[in-house]
Amino acid sequence: MEKNSTMIPLTTDVPNKKETVCIFGTGDFARSLGHKMMQCGYSIVFGSRGAQTSSLIPEGATVLSHAEAAETSGVIILAVHRTHYSFLENLREVLRGKVLVDVSNNLKINQYPESNAEYLAQLLPGSKVVKAFNTVSAWALQSGALDASRQVFVCGDDSKSKEKVMEIVRSLGLTPLDKGSLLAATEIENYPLQLFPMWKYPIYLSLVLSAFTFFYCVVRDVVYTYAKQQVDRSFLIAISIPNRVCPAVALILLALVYLPGIFAAVLQLYRGTKYRRFPDWLDKWMLCRKQLGLVALAYAFLHVLYTLVIPIRGYVRWRWNSYVIAQVLNNKTEPLNNERAWMSDSYVSLGILGFFLFVLLGITSLPSVSNSVNWREFRFVQSYLGYLTLVLCTAHTLVYGGKRFLNAGTYPWCLPSVYILSLIIPCIVLAMKFFLIFPCIDRPLTDIRQGWERTPKGISQTNSSHCRSAV
Amino acid sequence: MEKNSTMIPLTTDVPNKKETVCIFGTGDFARSLGHKMMQCGYSIVFGSRGAQTSSLIPEGATVLSHAEAAETSGVIILAVHRTHYSFLENLREVLRGKVLVDVSNNLKINQYPESNAEYLAQLLPGSKVVKAFNTVSAWALQSGALDASRQVFVCGDDSKSKEKVMEIVRSLGLTPLDKGSLLAATEIENYPLQLFPMWKYPIYLSLVLSAFTFFYCVVRDVVYTYAKQQVDRSFLIAISIPNRVCPAVALILLALVYLPGIFAAVLQLYRGTKYRRFPDWLDKWMLCRKQLGLVALAYAFLHVLYTLVIPIRGYVRWRWNSYVIAQVLNNKTEPLNNERAWMSDSYVSLGILGFFLFVLLGITSLPSVSNSVNWREFRFVQSYLGYLTLVLCTAHTLVYGGKRFLNAGTYPWCLPSVYILSLIIPCIVLAMKFFLIFPCIDRPLTDIRQGWERTPKGISQTNSSHCRSAV
Amino acid sequence: MEKNSTMIPLTTDVPNKKETVCIFGTGDFARSLGHKMMQCGYSIVFGSRGAQTSSLIPEGATVLSHAEAAETSGVIILAVHRTHYSFLENLREVLRGKVLVDVSNNLKINQYPESNAEYLAQLLPGSKVVKAFNTVSAWALQSGALDASRQVFVCGDDSKSKEKVMEIVRSLGLTPLDKGSLLAATEIENYPLQLFPMWKYPIYLSLVLSAFTFFYCVVRDVVYTYAKQQVDRSFLIAISIPNRVCPAVALILLALVYLPGIFAAVLQLYRGTKYRRFPDWLDKWMLCRKQLGLVALAYAFLHVLYTLVIPIRGYVRWRWNSYVIAQVLNNKTEPLNNERAWMSDSYVSLGILGFFLFVLLGITSLPSVSNSVNWREFRFVQSYLGYLTLVLCTAHTLVYGGKRFLNAGTYPWCLPSVYILSLIIPCIVLAMKFFLIFPCIDRPLTDIRQGWERTPKGISQTNSSHCRSAV
Repeated sequence: MEKNSTMIPLTTDVPNKKETVCIFGTGDFARSLGHKMMQCGYSIVFGSRGAQTSSLIPEGATVLSHAEAAETSGVIILAVHRTHYSFLENLREVLRGKVLVDVSNNLKINQYPESNAEYLAQLLPGSKVVKAFNTVSAWALQSGALDASRQVFVCGDDSKSKEKVMEIVRSLGLTPLDKGSLLAATEIENYPLQLFPMWKYPIYLSLVLSAFTFFYCVVRDVVYTYAKQQVDRSFLIAISIPNRVCPAVALILLALVYLPGIFAAVLQLYRGTKYRRFPDWLDKWMLCRKQLGLVALAYAFLHVLYTLVIPIRGYVRWRWNSYVIAQVLNNKTEPLNNERAWMSDSYVSLGILGFFLFVLLGITSLPSVSNSVNWREFRFVQSYLGYLTLVLCTAHTLVYGGKRFLNAGTYPWCLPSVYILSLIIPCIVLAMKFFLIFPCIDRPLTDIRQGWERTPKGISQTNSSHCRSAV
Repeated sequence: MEKNSTMIPLTTDVPNKKETVCIFGTGDFARSLGHKMMQCGYSIVFGSRGAQTSSLIPEGATVLSHAEAAETSGVIILAVHRTHYSFLENLREVLRGKVLVDVSNNLKINQYPESNAEYLAQLLPGSKVVKAFNTVSAWALQSGALDASRQVFVCGDDSKSKEKVMEIVRSLGLTPLDKGSLLAATEIENYPLQLFPMWKYPIYLSLVLSAFTFFYCVVRDVVYTYAKQQVDRSFLIAISIPNRVCPAVALILLALVYLPGIFAAVLQLYRGTKYRRFPDWLDKWMLCRKQLGLVALAYAFLHVLYTLVIPIRGYVRWRWNSYVIAQVLNNKTEPLNNERAWMSDSYVSLGILGFFLFVLLGITSLPSVSNSVNWREFRFVQSYLGYLTLVLCTAHTLVYGGKRFLNAGTYPWCLPSVYILSLIIPCIVLAMKFFLIFPCIDRPLTDIRQGWERTPKGISQTNSSHCRSAV
Repeated sequence: MEKNSTMIPLTTDVPNKKETVCIFGTGDFARSLGHKMMQCGYSIVFGSRGAQTSSLIPEGATVLSHAEAAETSGVIILAVHRTHYSFLENLREVLRGKVLVDVSNNLKINQYPESNAEYLAQLLPGSKVVKAFNTVSAWALQSGALDASRQVFVCGDDSKSKEKVMEIVRSLGLTPLDKGSLLAATEIENYPLQLFPMWKYPIYLSLVLSAFTFFYCVVRDVVYTYAKQQVDRSFLIAISIPNRVCPAVALILLALVYLPGIFAAVLQLYRGTKYRRFPDWLDKWMLCRKQLGLVALAYAFLHVLYTLVIPIRGYVRWRWNSYVIAQVLNNKTEPLNNERAWMSDSYVSLGILGFFLFVLLGITSLPSVSNSVNWREFRFVQSYLGYLTLVLCTAHTLVYGGKRFLNAGTYPWCLPSVYILSLIIPCIVLAMKFFLIFPCIDRPLTDIRQGWERTPKGISQTNSSHCRSAV
């Protein structure tokens, strides 16, 4: 697809093609599209109320009244607002049998009961309405800066008209994507109004968690030290505290990716069927698991960076140097503590392996990669490797804590370390998953997921086993 | 494509569309698909042997006998096993001219001589068979968790029927992908049964190599130290030994990516033609080069992480501290050794550059990226940059070894370091490539690859030069 | 799409399909394609001048004269040079109504005034010309090594012929991509001749910048030290100097991504309209911003790697050790300098956050990711996050400099550090952007970008506000 970015010169004139296309409206989008189409070799006739050539109209285009303009072409691009569609009723006869391309957008998602294109089709039943171009920005058409998606969603009930519009889309260097009948127009009209709808909750959640853990750490490490020892350690805010916040948030978010699956399994076991809809919150949660996981990966990535710069930090070098100097001045050398070497090396190693698998999971959620695996492969990666990642990251945190866990006496103001708090949800998820993979629980769950139902009427189900392979 | 993930609400009801579709079968997949289609506004009639409404059937759906059900719709989705297809012969007249959608899968790859869809088409020559939906999982349809591929492969001999089925696919929020005529059904049926077929050998190979080098290192570094000096250095297993295994395996695998190309060139030179098939093992090897390279990249990535954490490891800091303390206590300071600084810096720098190019290669093998480059660009990246990566990584290992190579006296139990063993294959590959780019060898090879043949009959070939540009 | 890579076995014989296809020409591409098609179950008849079976022809294929061969099939693949097309005029009658597939390529971009396929269509107006297969390499067909793009661009004026050719493409395991009418043939023929056309300028620019800063640093750090103090510090060339070059080039390139946008805004404000084309250099610059940004990211990635290896470098460890030993021997310990700890930690932290956002930007420019976001989302990421990245990276460099800026007395040979030079363009860009977001400047600019024009005739524009939503 992206081929186009290098393939189609955005500014070449193709003067030998002189098909005429009519555009109703002389607003920004109408002129930008007209300008672009003229560059690509089309003759453009603008239909306008005033019908006088304004200085705004691209040079070389004609401006006529709506009725006259409509006569000149079989394809009319309708670049006016839905609220002005009513004037088209007077043109019903002129527009009969012609292809009407609705490019309009609304200001809000689901602003009207039906989509603009469907409304237009009701208004002019004799015309062939095609929805297209609404996902393209006028500014992008104008500047040629089509770095983003070149896809143009097209839908319509008449396949020949649709093909004609798709041909125009292609000749502008864009990629048409057939979304089917005019019923898809609602989705297509809502599409450009969205701003990362699936990412909203995961990002808000991660920001709230980050803010909470950040202030918690500031109180625990900076305020406490200052209050008790009058030592200013505010510089910890720059790296040390972010490096406590990031792993904690990453671990919690990763556990939250797998928690709804646990809830769903429990609910299915309890209900004895998979054919009842989950509660709304669980549905929504399950649909944004991928986004939760990717936000968790971003935090894990930051944690890795913050950890790897430790030895080049001025403060850390000062502390290490002081430690060596103290040893020398006291004239005693510390022998190698084998157990501590094991602990230090193994939590680092667990973290590396966990991060490595996490990155793998992230790569498989790239659209082009997940499109190239089948369901069996996707589930293998996302559930086996996903749980392995969670196990490794939880183990990494547990070993990091080591023996310090129960040493609660050293907690400043009775506040436990952040990493202890961050372990709660992962441990719950892993414990519940551990129970769910017990054969006595796993078997009925598998049956339920393959269509078996535990009916209250006690009707025995026999078709579960032989329909397994039909899936 | 992935747009759909945010674009199409999975649960919205579209009550104004009331097309009726008939589904034969009441198994899990039939019910899941029926449920989903009803959510998307279709009327569903199930065709069943029993014809009584079971509690399993989604509410709102009708259950009729097969013949009655088939009457209600022009599209019949056949969600029964191939082994039960025989009952359809009695319905031949009812099904005449209707679109029959075969959604079946088998238990094994190539289980039957012909695909299920082709078998169905032979059974009912009057119906229009379309293969579809078999790559979608019932569980995914049910839970709405369509994170993975939304692509539905569709094939069929009648293009109108195919278009009708593709329209249904689209209206469920999935992306149809036309795979052509019914001949493609075999592939489509085999597709969901695969589990990373191209990755199997590379991953097995890397695991075997890892296991071997791991135990080799354990013997050499842990067992030897314990046997000779009674020192427990088992903690090396956590990081130090993995950090010897990973680069060794990465380098060997990277060399194995380029070795089959060398073999192919030698074979073509020897045979004097490119039109004879390579031996089967070489063919298979060449087809999984991309996977070999990506596994090598994964090992290289782990090696980078294991290397970067070196300074924060407890053991390493203890060793470095001991070194400083020893210097102080002996009251002598070591001057900067220029040569050692050069060696240390240059092997690190070579490694960084090699890893950087390796990551670039990895990015260009992402499906969406490799789809957006043409052949010339792909070969430029994969062969020039690929060999440069191999050269840099081999040089990195050679400089790392430095002067220690020939110092065989210090090998414990005569076991050379792992890095020395890992250099064997890369050096062979680079040496052979070096010979192959000699003009006197490169020229005939280029001719052969452009179609020239050294025929034993001695017929002179003259068309090689002027057909070059026809490629 | 990539599914094919695992899905379609490249060597299976499908013996039940015996459609005959005719290939004109017996050159390398003709034979490779014929061979491949025979493997996929087609009967192949070669049309040749000589008409005698040569040893080169794949076994099982027939060779006939052109006219005889053309009789055998409805589809003729034309694998001869454009310069030889004239012989086809004699076959005009035989070829009437048949599908002629033009697979030819040229040696140079835009070698002829019209594309080969259009020339062919003019020559044989009675035949249906389809352009296809020219982007596939003969070597790839032969070796099965279709790792790169499997996409085959197809265009043609007759949709049935196009569909027939697309079916052949699909049956070879390749993915046809409909590019529309025969007008697209020029682009399709130019496509395989390109070698990263959009990357040329960014890469050249980055190489020139790198070379300059590299020699500048060598003079400043190596030559100066040697000239003044007779100390050989040439080993700095391996890591220290690259680690000054990379961040400088990365920062300059990142600023150059945003500079053309600033120029464009100023130009639009000055002209009072967006409907006039930018100067050519600005257009080109704007079109390669994505590539500039990705090259900058590559340099930033190298900078991160070079920075993270600092503590494992032999030279650095020697310097750190010397510092500790000197402290011990002088019997004085340095206290923690709070301000220096703040400075050190905060420039590292700013760098980490900047790099993190930079990686995010890089991920969103992957084709499959940018295809899955809409315009609003893409602009949000690329402009807000992009500027935030630039601000963070500039701040990182400024804080790194800290108080050393004005300390010009310490410059060797009056050469300021490279990081000071690298700050010039970013600071200019940020300063100009700062002015552009002032409401009194931002408001007219927004109006202009929404279609308003400041006409010299003084005609008031009123349609700007109510056409905003039509975009």
